[in-house]
Amino acid sequence: MPVDTIRWTGKSVRIIDQTLLPNKLVYLDCRDVETLWQAIRELKVRGAPALGIAAAYGVMLAVRRFKGSDSAAFVRYVCDICDYIGRSRPTAVNLFNALNQMRQLALNNIDKPVVILRAVLESEANAIYEEDRAVCRAMGRHGAGLIKNGATVMTVCNAGGLATADYGTALGVMYAAKEAGKKFKVYALETRPLLQGARLTAWELMKNRIDVTLICDNMAATVMRDKGVDIIFTGADRIAANGDAANKIGTYMLAVLAKHHGIPFYVVAPRTTFDLKIATGRDIPIEERAAEEVTHFGLRPTAPKGVKVFNPAFDVTPNKLISGIVTEYGVIGKPFTVNILKNMS
Amino acid sequence: MPVDTIRWTGKSVRIIDQTLLPNKLVYLDCRDVETLWQAIRELKVRGAPALGIAAAYGVMLAVRRFKGSDSAAFVRYVCDICDYIGRSRPTAVNLFNALNQMRQLALNNIDKPVVILRAVLESEANAIYEEDRAVCRAMGRHGAGLIKNGATVMTVCNAGGLATADYGTALGVMYAAKEAGKKFKVYALETRPLLQGARLTAWELMKNRIDVTLICDNMAATVMRDKGVDIIFTGADRIAANGDAANKIGTYMLAVLAKHHGIPFYVVAPRTTFDLKIATGRDIPIEERAAEEVTHFGLRPTAPKGVKVFNPAFDVTPNKLISGIVTEYGVIGKPFTVNILKNMS
Repeated sequence: MPVDTIRWTGKSVRIIDQTLLPNKLVYLDCRDVETLWQAIRELKVRGAPALGIAAAYGVMLAVRRFKGSDSAAFVRYVCDICDYIGRSRPTAVNLFNALNQMRQLALNNIDKPVVILRAVLESEANAIYEEDRAVCRAMGRHGAGLIKNGATVMTVCNAGGLATADYGTALGVMYAAKEAGKKFKVYALETRPLLQGARLTAWELMKNRIDVTLICDNMAATVMRDKGVDIIFTGADRIAANGDAANKIGTYMLAVLAKHHGIPFYVVAPRTTFDLKIATGRDIPIEERAAEEVTHFGLRPTAPKGVKVFNPAFDVTPNKLISGIVTEYGVIGKPFTVNILKNMS
Repeated sequence: MPVDTIRWTGKSVRIIDQTLLPNKLVYLDCRDVETLWQAIRELKVRGAPALGIAAAYGVMLAVRRFKGSDSAAFVRYVCDICDYIGRSRPTAVNLFNALNQMRQLALNNIDKPVVILRAVLESEANAIYEEDRAVCRAMGRHGAGLIKNGATVMTVCNAGGLATADYGTALGVMYAAKEAGKKFKVYALETRPLLQGARLTAWELMKNRIDVTLICDNMAATVMRDKGVDIIFTGADRIAANGDAANKIGTYMLAVLAKHHGIPFYVVAPRTTFDLKIATGRDIPIEERAAEEVTHFGLRPTAPKGVKVFNPAFDVTPNKLISGIVTEYGVIGKPFTVNILKNMS
């Protein structure tokens, strides 16, 4: 059932070029780290867990280029590459967590020959990939119970198979509920400006025979009021120690609307999405992207030339608007600061 | 300063084809009522007050085709034409109000010769046009005081010169505030699926040298929280006797978000937008439009083939979320049921 979103071939990082979905399913072999960096930047591969995996494999791609047997030089090179990959996108912490793991492992093994260092790093990158697969399944199991038979569910952006190595975070919960025999329908927000909801989530859910209805983001409030939404699931790109959660722009809007309509609002994210060094959401860096994403559709302008644009790619939902966080350890409830610390340490 | 949105040439209804803005400013001469009907349907001309004017001039277009001197037959023809035009778009009541005026006037003058009937109807259609111009200015005067110097304002869709015969309803308030020497900035929601905010409002405000920043609809909550929005103005397509207001989809979302952030939320609309026969917003018919508006951009698909779509063109904001309604008679406050009746009778 999961799609083959990202894979290490030994010579390349093979990704689905998600900018071409749903019209074309094209695999792209990134054979050097610069190509992968650009693919991350352009959202050809996206989704917080998938970005962690892409970062780890990005290190593997880069070290293929390293010649020689100087272990210290090799480790320095790994550190430089980690810094470089870290400059691709600033918000999803999974990327930095994976890079820190790779960097630390290299530093810890600086006394080993380069050939061993390579093997250790490759095995670590593969472990990050494999762990994500297992973690998706665990989140799915823990979250599935929240979906009642006959429920109406809402989600934003894509937190599915295309955002992970397996069947996703928020969508993973839905896939697990379906496997458990439950029937439910999903409203997917299209997610402007890049339409990940329309292009990716609707595609994934239809492929997996889940009843999905696509709406524009500005229809969410009306659907909540008039169509009886029972529960909302979103992914996350970074969660602070107090449970404040950064996710795709529009998530905060959805959380406010959910509160007004009395609808439970759940974030689904693995341990690697938590950033316990950050006390609250105020400290999460929010990526702002190019105005053209809003003012153009492809090459065609849809707004007056030169108009000012504000285009934050993410927003932060404060913990008080979140009902619970579904993780691989179970559903974390309030008070978040205490319970996150308890679960993550 | 106002744009020439709609005009009766004596032989045609000349409109700006708003579907081509902001890339091209093209005037379209509708020389028969069927062409005008299609233009209304396709939103080449749109905006509740402009639709009232288009409907009245539509009757003028149609009666050019009437041959003979049988007054009763002429009046029957006018009634049929009014029914026909009324089937173009269901939500904006201005269209029906204008048609009722034209129909009633014809019925009241059924004893007059056809040549007189024609003249009476033409003069009525022109009066509807002229009244809208005066009413825009009056709303602007009454609303301008709500915008403080240095304020940050937000609006959705286009309730400007392109929606009226003069400088608009919600945007008219801004133009009047600017004329009064106030400085302020505006966040314009792009307004999916047809991007009237990006294409029309941003264009109008830039043309009139008002500081405008374009955002996607799902960014409104973040902008309210992080950029300090002081006040929100929207237009309306139909207002019930209790103040519930139908307007472009996304307006209800905006009103809920405004309440959460403690931001005053004003509707700006003339008397012709009120439908006192309707007690509450529940009775306002909401137009649902084609799925392709959401799933395609022009001819290019942006969602999987065959995906289910919910595409309501409007939503209803309940009166309790509205701070006041700016009309040509002044700003109507709560309790709305009493105060609307007082002002409108």
